[in-house]
Amino acid sequence: MKRMEEMILKEGKILPGGVLKVGSFLNQQVDIHFMKEIGDEVARLYKDSGATKILTIESSGIPIAISAGFAMGLPVVYAKKNKSSNVSGDVYSTPVKSFTHGNTNNVVVTKEYLSADDKILIVDDFLAHGSALTGLIDIVNQAGAEVVGCVAAIEKGFQMGGDRLRAEGYRIESLAIVDEMTDDGITFREQ
Amino acid sequence: MKRMEEMILKEGKILPGGVLKVGSFLNQQVDIHFMKEIGDEVARLYKDSGATKILTIESSGIPIAISAGFAMGLPVVYAKKNKSSNVSGDVYSTPVKSFTHGNTNNVVVTKEYLSADDKILIVDDFLAHGSALTGLIDIVNQAGAEVVGCVAAIEKGFQMGGDRLRAEGYRIESLAIVDEMTDDGITFREQ
Repeated sequence: MKRMEEMILKEGKILPGGVLKVGSFLNQQVDIHFMKEIGDEVARLYKDSGATKILTIESSGIPIAISAGFAMGLPVVYAKKNKSSNVSGDVYSTPVKSFTHGNTNNVVVTKEYLSADDKILIVDDFLAHGSALTGLIDIVNQAGAEVVGCVAAIEKGFQMGGDRLRAEGYRIESLAIVDEMTDDGITFREQ
Repeated sequence: MKRMEEMILKEGKILPGGVLKVGSFLNQQVDIHFMKEIGDEVARLYKDSGATKILTIESSGIPIAISAGFAMGLPVVYAKKNKSSNVSGDVYSTPVKSFTHGNTNNVVVTKEYLSADDKILIVDDFLAHGSALTGLIDIVNQAGAEVVGCVAAIEKGFQMGGDRLRAEGYRIESLAIVDEMTDDGITFREQ
């Protein structure tokens, strides 16, 4: 998605530790017109997938999932990073390590919101080492449902999570893939 | 909003400790068609407010904020509950006590996403004791911006936060107000 690359070049900031900050349009602050374009692009990519539900993880995956949900007319489920008092009953649960935050969260989805009949499209804002997507795929598998594919708004190609999941046979679509990120600039993978 | 009351009666579950669980359509799982109705209703209520930006708090306020953002064509900013490594630079910060989770979070918004020229519409899923809205209002005040009003999808009237904020002069619109919640049923406030 050319527009995603343009927005990253225009608005993105490279922070120490390999962090790409896109808070001005993708998370923290959401450019709502661009977010609609993102949802439309997800819908275009997966229109023939037979997806019945979109799954994401709080918090920064939620705007993308909601926009894709609007574009596709599909319900959205978001995994929570900690079981709280309003997550009742039986849950699917999986540990997810966050490289950004340097911790591991137990990620949960209430069982009644995923069924074995579901065909799940997984979306998130970033795909780096692939831990969040791997965790969400694990939850879908626990439910006996099918993963039709995944979308990341931005993939950090040099952290290999996307290519590892592709090698495992999953359809992984990233709206932009950053293959190199230095003080001199950003190199995108040709798609 | 009659439809919100109907959805609460149809889908809501009362849990111990005064928790109203609406995970099947409002948070955890989002009924995307109903979420569009919510955004349209927020837009109807605040169409003449001059709002320039929508502010919410992660995570369960985000779907409502995004839907309202689509309906109003406004950017969405969401406050984060903990400063993380991708929230860089100067932030507005305020403590917010969660009665659901029983803890206090430092809620932050990066300063560059709120300016003194902004007219802010605050949205959230629940309004109970009013701590989240009070914290978000404090952040808007720190930025020197103006609060044009607040929307809660569901207000627990018996926990008084909404009426306290109304008495302070804020415009608080709740799509449904639960005045009583017992094993025998739910009583809504006439609006």
